[in-house]
Amino acid sequence: MTKNGEYRFIKACRGEPVDATPVWFMRQAGRYMKEYRDLKEKYSFLEMCKTPELATEVTLQPLDVLGVDAAIIFADILLPLEPMGTGLEFSAGDGPVIPKPVRNAKDVEALRPVDAEAQLGYVGDAIRMVRGEIEGKLPLIGFCGAPFTLCSYMMEGGKSKDFTITKLMMSEEPETWKKLMDKVCLVLIDYLKMQARAGAQALQVFDSWVGCLSPGDYQQHILPYTKRVIDGVKDCGVPVINFSTGTSSMLGSISQAGGDVVGFDWRIFLDEAWDIIGNDTPIQGNLDPCILFAPIPTIREKVHDVLKRAGGRKGHIFNLGHGILQKTPVDHVKAVVDMVHEYQHEQ
Amino acid sequence: MTKNGEYRFIKACRGEPVDATPVWFMRQAGRYMKEYRDLKEKYSFLEMCKTPELATEVTLQPLDVLGVDAAIIFADILLPLEPMGTGLEFSAGDGPVIPKPVRNAKDVEALRPVDAEAQLGYVGDAIRMVRGEIEGKLPLIGFCGAPFTLCSYMMEGGKSKDFTITKLMMSEEPETWKKLMDKVCLVLIDYLKMQARAGAQALQVFDSWVGCLSPGDYQQHILPYTKRVIDGVKDCGVPVINFSTGTSSMLGSISQAGGDVVGFDWRIFLDEAWDIIGNDTPIQGNLDPCILFAPIPTIREKVHDVLKRAGGRKGHIFNLGHGILQKTPVDHVKAVVDMVHEYQHEQ
Repeated sequence: MTKNGEYRFIKACRGEPVDATPVWFMRQAGRYMKEYRDLKEKYSFLEMCKTPELATEVTLQPLDVLGVDAAIIFADILLPLEPMGTGLEFSAGDGPVIPKPVRNAKDVEALRPVDAEAQLGYVGDAIRMVRGEIEGKLPLIGFCGAPFTLCSYMMEGGKSKDFTITKLMMSEEPETWKKLMDKVCLVLIDYLKMQARAGAQALQVFDSWVGCLSPGDYQQHILPYTKRVIDGVKDCGVPVINFSTGTSSMLGSISQAGGDVVGFDWRIFLDEAWDIIGNDTPIQGNLDPCILFAPIPTIREKVHDVLKRAGGRKGHIFNLGHGILQKTPVDHVKAVVDMVHEYQHEQ
Repeated sequence: MTKNGEYRFIKACRGEPVDATPVWFMRQAGRYMKEYRDLKEKYSFLEMCKTPELATEVTLQPLDVLGVDAAIIFADILLPLEPMGTGLEFSAGDGPVIPKPVRNAKDVEALRPVDAEAQLGYVGDAIRMVRGEIEGKLPLIGFCGAPFTLCSYMMEGGKSKDFTITKLMMSEEPETWKKLMDKVCLVLIDYLKMQARAGAQALQVFDSWVGCLSPGDYQQHILPYTKRVIDGVKDCGVPVINFSTGTSSMLGSISQAGGDVVGFDWRIFLDEAWDIIGNDTPIQGNLDPCILFAPIPTIREKVHDVLKRAGGRKGHIFNLGHGILQKTPVDHVKAVVDMVHEYQHEQ
């Protein structure tokens, strides 16, 4: 996977020429793999995140099976909430529950600063262990949630349909919102830096739910903070991927938040998105995760369409538009990796 | 509300000059109103839809309270599923359940044609009753679900997160998909025509979930059918509103499906959307429904932003980007109507 000691994935993040389009998948370690489900029988999700040996095992599970060009550390974007003091639980099936949601100035005041090295050190430990296992073979990606997505969980108390509480806070209590975002940004920057020090060779910022906002609200209430996090880890010297979903109509604003790479979902043609983001910025995407349930010929057609739209330009990392879905056939995921690597761009 | 016998809302649908921007709200009759909740204590949702006297009462509830420029008949986009044979239930809180979902060619074959006049005549009866009540005061909108949104419920068996079953059917069983869409289009055209004959003075086609698709899938598998429905009711002589959400990055394709008016959500600035749709086509939108929970000054600022972006151009109907949310304060909805009517466009 390396050539002259350089990783294909890292080179693409920098917009450098590569021998083949690099590919990895969001949630490439997870429930669609039998190895993961077997482990999940014995341990809870949080136990797996917090035990470096288990997180390492899960991180490694898909690598040889799929032949992807990068590993991503097994963790959860909500892990920083625990040391901040809101609590964090994962109920079977229903997703995350935040027992003490943040709803007012007092709640924001009560949020504790986090020492990532001390309090989230298990993620750093897992990163070091994974690096030890894949050194010279694959690069490792660290990650965190973006300020909006993280705060939406903190405020709504879990997943939300309309994000009304979060939207109201940002417009009606600008001082409280600012204090919350200031605190969250500090935690996220420290958390990402810790991951980079531990050995993460790229960092992805996940803004999975920011697509619920109007472009005006994004620009006014979110962009400055996402930008602060991304700018804040520049001196780590590793590429940062700015990823969001449901944001096809505001990719211009999204790009302004920065990132060496901008990732987006399947709701826009890749070439249109790249034109908006700017052709000098590397991009990541953008296959619909549902396609992986289709038979191979359909998958091939759709994968080729994405690659054709990338047109062999430098700086394309192939990925889905969001995480791999449960029950996705593993051999279909593997097939995508091969299709991407074997694809010959027309000259 | 009328001037020279013409309704402000209808004139805007035709792109004609109006004395003030017309405004109505999707789901303006519903749970956020005490009058509705009181009635709902006594009757089930389906009873209310199927009893013309009750549907009429609910349709009328918001009109005087809010001062809107149009009524929309109280009904549900899924009503045609019952006579088609899939069954239809509404569980408390969980939304619609389709007991016999459509999953294969045999299921599609089994779908029954619908005689809207005979089998959905209760909607026509309600339309006639409402017309009798508001004649000369307000126009009445009829509606149906768009082929994709309707089929997604039929196939997934209810609301869905990923719409995998529906997406797979369209790519993998194109013949079955075509047969399903052909049947659904026939039903929808007949259903809309029945509503127009009963007295609906405009028709809205709701494609609430089509934003889950890639633009390529929309163009290939959906656009021709939505277009067929819209074209199919042209000779009714009433304006048709083509409404969808989550489609900000494919409004160009959405417009190709037709419609005298194109409606969209809050995920794009109104002026940007209008430029894409084409300035000759009237538009409807686009306030985020969450804004209605904010205090009046915030609501005013956001309402004025929408109106300012419309810039006084002919053919803007003010609406939310989707339906009114539960628990929205009624006086805030009323305040929006006044703000829209009182707004003076800069000359």
